[in-house]
Amino acid sequence: MAIMEISVVPIGTESTSVSPFVAECVKIVEQQGLTYEVTSMGTEVEGAVDDLLTLAAQMHQAPFTQGAQRVLTIIRIDERRDKELRIAGKKAAVLKRLREMGIER
Amino acid sequence: MAIMEISVVPIGTESTSVSPFVAECVKIVEQQGLTYEVTSMGTEVEGAVDDLLTLAAQMHQAPFTQGAQRVLTIIRIDERRDKELRIAGKKAAVLKRLREMGIER
Amino acid sequence: MAIMEISVVPIGTESTSVSPFVAECVKIVEQQGLTYEVTSMGTEVEGAVDDLLTLAAQMHQAPFTQGAQRVLTIIRIDERRDKELRIAGKKAAVLKRLREMGIER
Amino acid sequence: MAIMEISVVPIGTESTSVSPFVAECVKIVEQQGLTYEVTSMGTEVEGAVDDLLTLAAQMHQAPFTQGAQRVLTIIRIDERRDKELRIAGKKAAVLKRLREMGIER
Repeated sequence: MAIMEISVVPIGTESTSVSPFVAECVKIVEQQGLTYEVTSMGTEVEGAVDDLLTLAAQMHQAPFTQGAQRVLTIIRIDERRDKELRIAGKKAAVLKRLREMGIER
Repeated sequence: MAIMEISVVPIGTESTSVSPFVAECVKIVEQQGLTYEVTSMGTEVEGAVDDLLTLAAQMHQAPFTQGAQRVLTIIRIDERRDKELRIAGKKAAVLKRLREMGIER
Repeated sequence: MAIMEISVVPIGTESTSVSPFVAECVKIVEQQGLTYEVTSMGTEVEGAVDDLLTLAAQMHQAPFTQGAQRVLTIIRIDERRDKELRIAGKKAAVLKRLREMGIER
Repeated sequence: MAIMEISVVPIGTESTSVSPFVAECVKIVEQQGLTYEVTSMGTEVEGAVDDLLTLAAQMHQAPFTQGAQRVLTIIRIDERRDKELRIAGKKAAVLKRLREMGIER
């Protein structure tokens, strides 16, 4: 089990707005039925690495079908073999430590 | 106004757990009083670019004070001059488009 | 044709040195017969996006076979459909502009 | 001593070509007198972390002065305290290991 953070950016599209492109990418994640989280800087998805990279290839193609001629895709994959890594669990571990330090989020 | 996504990773620390290091970094953000969001893959912070990069320098130093000998810091900064960019607004724009496509998050 | 920049980082290894892990990853690229470039911060490879992501999956696995329990892989893919994108050509385009600005590298 | 890899990307420009923007950013690095390397996916610079992030802020501003309305800047900083980290040395360490594995670059 791994977590992927992915951001797909169309280049040279005239408009500075990228949300129509981002939404189309998130739709592809939604259709895969994988657990995911939308953030302001990308999409986090959990799953097996091979599945995540297959998904990344599909997301990267999406802006081209919407007219973009150049696409930059930024991916980070975090995988642990000693422990199950999940979006909710990883975030909860940080929030728990913050609470121990007196910071409530 | 810009949004920064930052992830600070200690290298060669024996333990595969990084949450103690991450929490210390988030504490630094908290002390700055900037608007931020903790995600499973990093921390998103909004502010002026100069302030964000000053903050990034402080966060990058934190693991060294906790004993790390090598630190990898990954940063993405997204800045618009034609419109105010904020974490909540940017995420809401994507979720709105998803709803229009019939996807409820 | 696209260019991928990839960096595979083992987390929680005892040593701060990562070159044995990096070399093993580069060996995998070499065996694929794809055009690539080693830089101080990662490996750049050119090819079709599907091939590049298949390669990325193999490179991401490598540190686990060398004993790592956690691996962070950072990928950027740049693809153009209006023009052939190659490592040598893309770098040459920047160097040409620099020369026009009086900067010789 | 640290190494920074930085890539500054204008968003919503009409052209898919980014080399005029990249060259302007490299010019800023050149003027600082820091040791750097141009790759096909960005610029690698070595120096103290504070100096590198000050430089990053200047490079991030450059596309705005050239007419861009949105800029995405991607940064990775690798710093070691147990050993001096330099672009040439880090790359040489990987190439040396590759030669020991029978791969000549």
